Amino acid sequence: MFASIELVKPQISVITLGVHDLERSRGFYEALGWTTDAGPDADVIFFQSGEMVLALWDRTRLAEDSCVDDDGGWGGVTLALNLPEPSDVDIATEIARAAGATIAREPAETFWGGYSAIFIDPDGHPWELAYNPHWELTEDGGVSLG
Amino acid sequence: MFASIELVKPQISVITLGVHDLERSRGFYEALGWTTDAGPDADVIFFQSGEMVLALWDRTRLAEDSCVDDDGGWGGVTLALNLPEPSDVDIATEIARAAGATIAREPAETFWGGYSAIFIDPDGHPWELAYNPHWELTEDGGVSLG
Repeated sequence: MFASIELVKPQISVITLGVHDLERSRGFYEALGWTTDAGPDADVIFFQSGEMVLALWDRTRLAEDSCVDDDGGWGGVTLALNLPEPSDVDIATEIARAAGATIAREPAETFWGGYSAIFIDPDGHPWELAYNPHWELTEDGGVSLG
Repeated sequence: MFASIELVKPQISVITLGVHDLERSRGFYEALGWTTDAGPDADVIFFQSGEMVLALWDRTRLAEDSCVDDDGGWGGVTLALNLPEPSDVDIATEIARAAGATIAREPAETFWGGYSAIFIDPDGHPWELAYNPHWELTEDGGVSLG
């Protein structure tokens, strides 16, 4: 018997996004305001995200390393950045637009009572920019289900 | 001009995984040891993950909501749970196997000097179970790039 709760803690450590052009993708996330210590020749780019890491890596190598086939599309994963106020969603959407994102859904009220927008990064990864009145944000910008 | 660093903080709030059978997927993550307060009829399942949330939602609805086309494959996203010791990777792999995951790569040393395994969840989402000697884990199990 394994002590599953102790060992597989619900603490996601890394989200790796497969990208086609590391330089372009790095530039995009830096334009959002994220910073990295990665050198110019790094082949993986790490961004600290709270107590987690967002990594950018060549998509072909990531597919191989993850033991999956890649047909090039979306794979059923959407990321979200929650923000303190609806007006922050508007402003963050303009930051993403200026960084070169496709704004797939302009900021608007949502069916779940919030206010959000969707942007698509240069590799097709969708992000929601969201204000959720039902959730509390922690002092560090984290989310607490309460 | 927008204060990008303030507004788009590198703090990912939610990772939503699109799933085909919510009940099956919920059962899988609960079998890993994760807990949720979602009721039996909930159509989105939220798991607190550090200061973030892992959400499970119908894949078709997630695709619509994310404004993307879904061709059913992998989409260039891999998640990782980092663990304190190599032996924890072995044990966590057995927990995932017992929960019904496909172990796509058995625990082994990696090219980057760590030790890891890959499991694939019931909807094809790959997870790495990793020991990384180059990174520190925080007291709460988070990752610090230092």
